[in-house]
Amino acid sequence: MSKLRELGIRIGELDSGPRDSLADAGEVRVGHATIADGRRQTGVTAVIPAPGDLLEEKLPAAAVVLNGFGKTLGLVQVEELGTLESPILLTNTLNVGLVHDAAVEHALRARRAAGLGLRSYNPIVAECNDGGLNAIEERAVGRAEVFAALDGASSDFERGAVGAGRGMSCHGLKGGVGSASRSFDIGGRAFAMGALVLSNHGLLGDLVVKGVPVGAIVEERMASAAARRAQAAREADGGSVIVVLGTDLPLSDRQLRRVAARAGLGLARLGSRLAHGSGEIVLAFSTAQRVAGASPGGLSTRRQLDEELLDLPFRAASEATEAAVLDSLLSATRTVGRDGAVREALADWLDEGLLARLRA
Amino acid sequence: MSKLRELGIRIGELDSGPRDSLADAGEVRVGHATIADGRRQTGVTAVIPAPGDLLEEKLPAAAVVLNGFGKTLGLVQVEELGTLESPILLTNTLNVGLVHDAAVEHALRARRAAGLGLRSYNPIVAECNDGGLNAIEERAVGRAEVFAALDGASSDFERGAVGAGRGMSCHGLKGGVGSASRSFDIGGRAFAMGALVLSNHGLLGDLVVKGVPVGAIVEERMASAAARRAQAAREADGGSVIVVLGTDLPLSDRQLRRVAARAGLGLARLGSRLAHGSGEIVLAFSTAQRVAGASPGGLSTRRQLDEELLDLPFRAASEATEAAVLDSLLSATRTVGRDGAVREALADWLDEGLLARLRA
Amino acid sequence: MSKLRELGIRIGELDSGPRDSLADAGEVRVGHATIADGRRQTGVTAVIPAPGDLLEEKLPAAAVVLNGFGKTLGLVQVEELGTLESPILLTNTLNVGLVHDAAVEHALRARRAAGLGLRSYNPIVAECNDGGLNAIEERAVGRAEVFAALDGASSDFERGAVGAGRGMSCHGLKGGVGSASRSFDIGGRAFAMGALVLSNHGLLGDLVVKGVPVGAIVEERMASAAARRAQAAREADGGSVIVVLGTDLPLSDRQLRRVAARAGLGLARLGSRLAHGSGEIVLAFSTAQRVAGASPGGLSTRRQLDEELLDLPFRAASEATEAAVLDSLLSATRTVGRDGAVREALADWLDEGLLARLRA
Amino acid sequence: MSKLRELGIRIGELDSGPRDSLADAGEVRVGHATIADGRRQTGVTAVIPAPGDLLEEKLPAAAVVLNGFGKTLGLVQVEELGTLESPILLTNTLNVGLVHDAAVEHALRARRAAGLGLRSYNPIVAECNDGGLNAIEERAVGRAEVFAALDGASSDFERGAVGAGRGMSCHGLKGGVGSASRSFDIGGRAFAMGALVLSNHGLLGDLVVKGVPVGAIVEERMASAAARRAQAAREADGGSVIVVLGTDLPLSDRQLRRVAARAGLGLARLGSRLAHGSGEIVLAFSTAQRVAGASPGGLSTRRQLDEELLDLPFRAASEATEAAVLDSLLSATRTVGRDGAVREALADWLDEGLLARLRA
Repeated sequence: MSKLRELGIRIGELDSGPRDSLADAGEVRVGHATIADGRRQTGVTAVIPAPGDLLEEKLPAAAVVLNGFGKTLGLVQVEELGTLESPILLTNTLNVGLVHDAAVEHALRARRAAGLGLRSYNPIVAECNDGGLNAIEERAVGRAEVFAALDGASSDFERGAVGAGRGMSCHGLKGGVGSASRSFDIGGRAFAMGALVLSNHGLLGDLVVKGVPVGAIVEERMASAAARRAQAAREADGGSVIVVLGTDLPLSDRQLRRVAARAGLGLARLGSRLAHGSGEIVLAFSTAQRVAGASPGGLSTRRQLDEELLDLPFRAASEATEAAVLDSLLSATRTVGRDGAVREALADWLDEGLLARLRA
Repeated sequence: MSKLRELGIRIGELDSGPRDSLADAGEVRVGHATIADGRRQTGVTAVIPAPGDLLEEKLPAAAVVLNGFGKTLGLVQVEELGTLESPILLTNTLNVGLVHDAAVEHALRARRAAGLGLRSYNPIVAECNDGGLNAIEERAVGRAEVFAALDGASSDFERGAVGAGRGMSCHGLKGGVGSASRSFDIGGRAFAMGALVLSNHGLLGDLVVKGVPVGAIVEERMASAAARRAQAAREADGGSVIVVLGTDLPLSDRQLRRVAARAGLGLARLGSRLAHGSGEIVLAFSTAQRVAGASPGGLSTRRQLDEELLDLPFRAASEATEAAVLDSLLSATRTVGRDGAVREALADWLDEGLLARLRA
Repeated sequence: MSKLRELGIRIGELDSGPRDSLADAGEVRVGHATIADGRRQTGVTAVIPAPGDLLEEKLPAAAVVLNGFGKTLGLVQVEELGTLESPILLTNTLNVGLVHDAAVEHALRARRAAGLGLRSYNPIVAECNDGGLNAIEERAVGRAEVFAALDGASSDFERGAVGAGRGMSCHGLKGGVGSASRSFDIGGRAFAMGALVLSNHGLLGDLVVKGVPVGAIVEERMASAAARRAQAAREADGGSVIVVLGTDLPLSDRQLRRVAARAGLGLARLGSRLAHGSGEIVLAFSTAQRVAGASPGGLSTRRQLDEELLDLPFRAASEATEAAVLDSLLSATRTVGRDGAVREALADWLDEGLLARLRA
Repeated sequence: MSKLRELGIRIGELDSGPRDSLADAGEVRVGHATIADGRRQTGVTAVIPAPGDLLEEKLPAAAVVLNGFGKTLGLVQVEELGTLESPILLTNTLNVGLVHDAAVEHALRARRAAGLGLRSYNPIVAECNDGGLNAIEERAVGRAEVFAALDGASSDFERGAVGAGRGMSCHGLKGGVGSASRSFDIGGRAFAMGALVLSNHGLLGDLVVKGVPVGAIVEERMASAAARRAQAAREADGGSVIVVLGTDLPLSDRQLRRVAARAGLGLARLGSRLAHGSGEIVLAFSTAQRVAGASPGGLSTRRQLDEELLDLPFRAASEATEAAVLDSLLSATRTVGRDGAVREALADWLDEGLLARLRA
């Protein structure tokens, strides 16, 4: 069950889907490998957007860069071709290379097992900087972790300080992986928009939940010098947030690009200021149909939503992103990392009074 | 005095500048011509970003399209060259052509008076759709109105249902022209970021001010069938918002593009959902230095802010935009237009209790 | 018959279509209104991409800005929505506004005749600067010309120094309107890619046709001081070229954007250097299917080409653009304009020897 | 000495610089590590754009994606910040990850040696697909090769089938690394524009040099079945070309983006058709000034070229790119790779007659 549902906090107007997670968008699976070992607090999270060989049967997809202070790998091709042909891997900034190589190796083995080769491949590796808690320069995430995340992926997955989220900080608190979904009707059918975030952005004082200045309140409550010091360190850090949106609604790559642009609304509503040093990147895909190589006569047919009906999926993307970031904050646990650096968990600083306001 | 300051409502963390308007960004002037005549409720607003011949001495500038369901004219060249060489004119959607022609004529006369010709010119004409209140198909804004707006421009200007704002609707209420500014220190010197908006976007139920669900509250208060009907009509409309940002801080065109992207945060915080049918376009310019044609040796020198210091101007842009939209709502007066269509003024629906919450 | 076919000059590998013009792309019609009156040498050209009410039944479309020193109106919405809802009008730089207004009036009348209103409309008005031959500051193109161009449009249309092409110069010679097409097979069916250009770019010395340095040869032949002087004047001018591509192949807006990007290859092969002052803009549309407002269940179906088969339409777009620019040069006649300015016609400077080389 | 100069082939109008290579752009160095071992025909090429710690003193830079079927890493940040903070590494498609990791390790060691840490880093790793000659799935380029290329970089460097160019094919022949430069005067001072390409694109039949259909002629001459077979295999391959442009002219990041867009002209003039499967990516940097972190008062000063003077550097970029691709073809030697695949060297198929035509 999602943390927000457990706590009875409702964000926005739309209902959440059955799992209140990205997995509501179809047969999406998510896996983590977590390294939590003293000065190494990091990991990798794999989003597998659909079953089968994604190279042979791609998904319509799009990417939007809200702020490009980031090192995400693979966007050039997504923008040109409008398709996703790989899992989306999330990790720390300096581990992008090793995770790319492990993703290539993983695909190669799967292709070989099917009697196929692999000469070109565009894995998506997105990153945030966990250098505040993690000895990031060690690039601790290797092939074993990437394989574990990919092979262990499930529609039911953990959230919080796990996987790539292990060392992340968000709004000065412990951030990490969060997820949420929204359900909505189009033409009498129910569709879902799911979001998964890797949250590592924002200042504590800016955090606002449903209009309540939660960040300022928590700041007030953090009497101890230690908590304040951790926060101060955080202020100088970089930041970043990765948002992955998935839907089972048939959308074209252009429509997905428009949907992805709405993720920024969700970030803004929680208090993001889209800082200079924050790489804020959104990926969106649709699981409603696959894009295969060769069609009879060279022409294929694709369904897509009437453009005039996009407001509902737009709202769903915005709300799901907002809920997913909050979910990451509420799911994450207090973490101690390199050189004794600490990130407090939001859940530890909420009392019943504050919770009541968030439930209103 | 700005409406927000008059009412004692403070948005965000930064102080506003002396005029709390776009005019704080340098020698910026704004002029309006308003047509308010039964079924014609429209006009034109001219932003003159700096004194002198802008064709000879351009300003660094940038544009960002948050959502491109709009007809704004002139962006192609701003994006290529990173300069602004004309006033920015705001008007209704179908009047873009006539306003362009009047702007050309105005520049031509000024150039001729100075003994110069005019063979190429890139006036910026931005628009929102005021067809809900205005008989937009009549293109009522002609040469006389454009000349009046340009020639009557002043650093002290009206806000609300005036100029291009005459027929606009925002969050289901009367929208129009709003302005605000933020002041901040860089290296011991004070700089300003000003915003001027033409607001014509959003749903009433989505309007949130400082976390208070003002839209929902006002919706509740609107007991009369008439008010509800007006609102219902509005829901089906298109929308759009134009944001003009100006600053006296030396920023490059690339930095201005980054600043412009932050205007969306301000819109989001008031409840914008970046609707499909809403053309949301941001223009940003710096008045700190002029770009002239020919320099000695072919090389010129430009100052620009250290990239790492952008967070403060980013925040200023976000806050000034948020405040400017709210200013447009609070300054606008109830307006009756074509076919008896009505837009209520936000100010008429605030009581002391609600105002007290917004002053908190 | 196209000028190239008449002269027996073949460009590229693919065959041209039946008309060797943009009209091969479906039911495309083109109309001109020409003003050729002493110091006024200008006009308007209308491309009507498909029959019927384009607002109700749009076409998939895309735009690419190769160099943005231009004032083309309407691209923002094409880029966001991927559709074309109007004719494409070509004219001179300072006439963009009046032509926009006339296009609105024309659509309004057609809509009214059908019992419909018009509150929003995105006409495309593209321009080049004909100020070298034309008293551009007079904005001579008014409602009468725009209506004449739209109402007189035909699948069989003139090329050369007509319509918007009247005052244009290309590679130092008389430019203007040119057109060509390419035919190719996909899955056993024949499709066409048509191009129409408004050519107003390039230097004489850079003109190369099929590897023959035609520009340098012509330059050599221009012994008279007058011709050289005209050329010198031209060198200092601005330039620009507008390319309109149409096809009856089912392509998505993203695929059309990729096709549009290949027009630059055709320009480059004739010697364009993509000058700073040249607004080089490409629009592409597909007539294979219409985009209507509302579909049953909110979902529509679109056909599109398999991505792997795009090389053929890419080559067709490149070749058709190259041929269309050459067609504009070969079709245009010597023109005398403002202040006695002259542009020579390429055809007048080719002798049998040179023609033989181009026919090889 | 460059191959073109050695052979007496002159491309375009401008003179080449002293080295006729990218190294003319300042203190640029280039290094290669080559793997040529049976089925492994691959490598890495490092372009070090300037001496010193690039993280502390960045260079103004820009990137342009001509066709995005590619996996280049690092462009997101270059586009946002307009700076280059690392060497540019070129390699094969599937080796992007390992080369990234080696680049991080190399920077980390250098920083540590200087008593500094490294928490964030944006190395540029660009790639082409050498799978036709190389067992690309083995990712043969590891840390040793990357370090060797970086540490062995010199202003005097090899061209042809070396480094990343080892396994590349261009226009159906042996491609690889090529370089060239152009020299030009601005305000009485000489500046240089250098290009380095990794060429792996194009069809043999499309290759045209100075208007001479070299590709068709060579195709004719390739009588042997083996050569034809190799060519046939090539036709089905992917392709790609990476262009690195450097200049000592003071240009802003926006100006560098405009310069980069002109590289496509050079490719087109040699016969590139910008194929669907070809990742064509251009990076441009200026060595004229460094971008440091913190300036007094938060404001720095940058020189930049007057916009109106860009036509000369534009032409230089186009010509240098064209010459660099031709240099890669002329420098490369016949290569046998995986499964006996062969790529012929252009130089082996030119006779004196053909050379004479290219010298004309």
